[in-house]
Amino acid sequence: MKHYAMTGGATGIGAAIKQRLLDQGNKVTVVDIKNADIEADLGKPESRAEALAALQAAGPFDGLIMCAGVASHFPDTAAIVSINYYGTVELVEGLENHLTPNARVVAISSNSAPMCQTPEIVDRLLNTDEAQARELAAQTEGHECYSGSKQAVAKWVRRIAPSWARKGIAVNAIAPGYIETPMTKAVAESPEYADKIKQFLASIPMQRAGQPEDIANLAEFLLSDKASFISGSVLFCDGGHDAMLRPEGF
Amino acid sequence: MKHYAMTGGATGIGAAIKQRLLDQGNKVTVVDIKNADIEADLGKPESRAEALAALQAAGPFDGLIMCAGVASHFPDTAAIVSINYYGTVELVEGLENHLTPNARVVAISSNSAPMCQTPEIVDRLLNTDEAQARELAAQTEGHECYSGSKQAVAKWVRRIAPSWARKGIAVNAIAPGYIETPMTKAVAESPEYADKIKQFLASIPMQRAGQPEDIANLAEFLLSDKASFISGSVLFCDGGHDAMLRPEGF
Repeated sequence: MKHYAMTGGATGIGAAIKQRLLDQGNKVTVVDIKNADIEADLGKPESRAEALAALQAAGPFDGLIMCAGVASHFPDTAAIVSINYYGTVELVEGLENHLTPNARVVAISSNSAPMCQTPEIVDRLLNTDEAQARELAAQTEGHECYSGSKQAVAKWVRRIAPSWARKGIAVNAIAPGYIETPMTKAVAESPEYADKIKQFLASIPMQRAGQPEDIANLAEFLLSDKASFISGSVLFCDGGHDAMLRPEGF
Repeated sequence: MKHYAMTGGATGIGAAIKQRLLDQGNKVTVVDIKNADIEADLGKPESRAEALAALQAAGPFDGLIMCAGVASHFPDTAAIVSINYYGTVELVEGLENHLTPNARVVAISSNSAPMCQTPEIVDRLLNTDEAQARELAAQTEGHECYSGSKQAVAKWVRRIAPSWARKGIAVNAIAPGYIETPMTKAVAESPEYADKIKQFLASIPMQRAGQPEDIANLAEFLLSDKASFISGSVLFCDGGHDAMLRPEGF
């Protein structure tokens, strides 16, 4: 039995990963805004600090799975970057000394990460502080905040992975494409994004939306002994969308 | 029982994948220069055509795993691009109509792919013909031919993946880091590359060389039902080396 800590385990991708880990007989401690072991609003620094303290007390952990996130339609665009980026980064960094040897970290990024057209958002997240990132995000369109926060998560994973690997801890990101979850359903039903999501869905090369289980399968593999040489990777699981939109990149 | 076709299944990464598939009760038809079901020199167009015809007769296949490759120290630098790129691309394309529904294709690229400093090699491979690519490769240093051929394989995977996905076939690339195989042992012992390889090995963040089984684990996952939403992805399995060398890219 292993003990994992998760954010965003109450719904969607996180819930599928949590169920998979529980089915294998593991213990999972979940942080989420509701229906969780530790209830917290990861968009608020003080609530995030309380969640971190509660996790530190509950550890050590064999792995961290960072799934909490809000999507492009979230009305408070500053909260998108706070939840998606700082809700991941601050908790992982704060748990660095609460991990077992050879622990694994998996952070959920997005296949929208390379599509961000506002590099300043990514730069502020990676290189300044939360107040400066929020200031810009508050004036920026929701999808740019979402894709920017997910690009920053991917780049942060790649920045920290080498030094964590030297301690035996693998840190990787998964970049899901369109996955049917309560989060993406809300975007698909929002007046602002409904048409875009319809077009996006119809263009998935694999001809179907992803399911939370698709991501749980990949997360399960990354958490297993079989993936011990994978570190610092951003693994796309998106039915071919990133390859279609960005064939020369990888 | 599934029937897979492989290139480069006699040694190294390919042999580990072959063994894994056989252990699971599958049938594997191997093309290699020796010790194989179909013996061929994939660097030579006529021998490659014979191998393709033999594979077409042996199909249909549930998956293709393209591992055949030679490394930077190979004395005939034109053969590096012929074997690594055309030995993969021509066989996969020639087997397009010899696959079962929902078949999988896995091509072995390399974590050296993003490091190629000779974009002309990649361009000739992707956009011209074998004679023009060989002409440039013959005048180019071995490691540039190797990394260029592997970058071209990765980009070719991303180019074809969307249309193949629309037919239900997932095509992905694995980008291994330094894996202990007969191929890399030969490079490590070559006068030209011995010192570079020693430094490269010492810099792997995960503090160990990869083993063929590390790549077999990832290939097994990509060939399984659990990976059906992964398409057009280049999956790095390199102990954190790519993240270390290229933290801003992915």
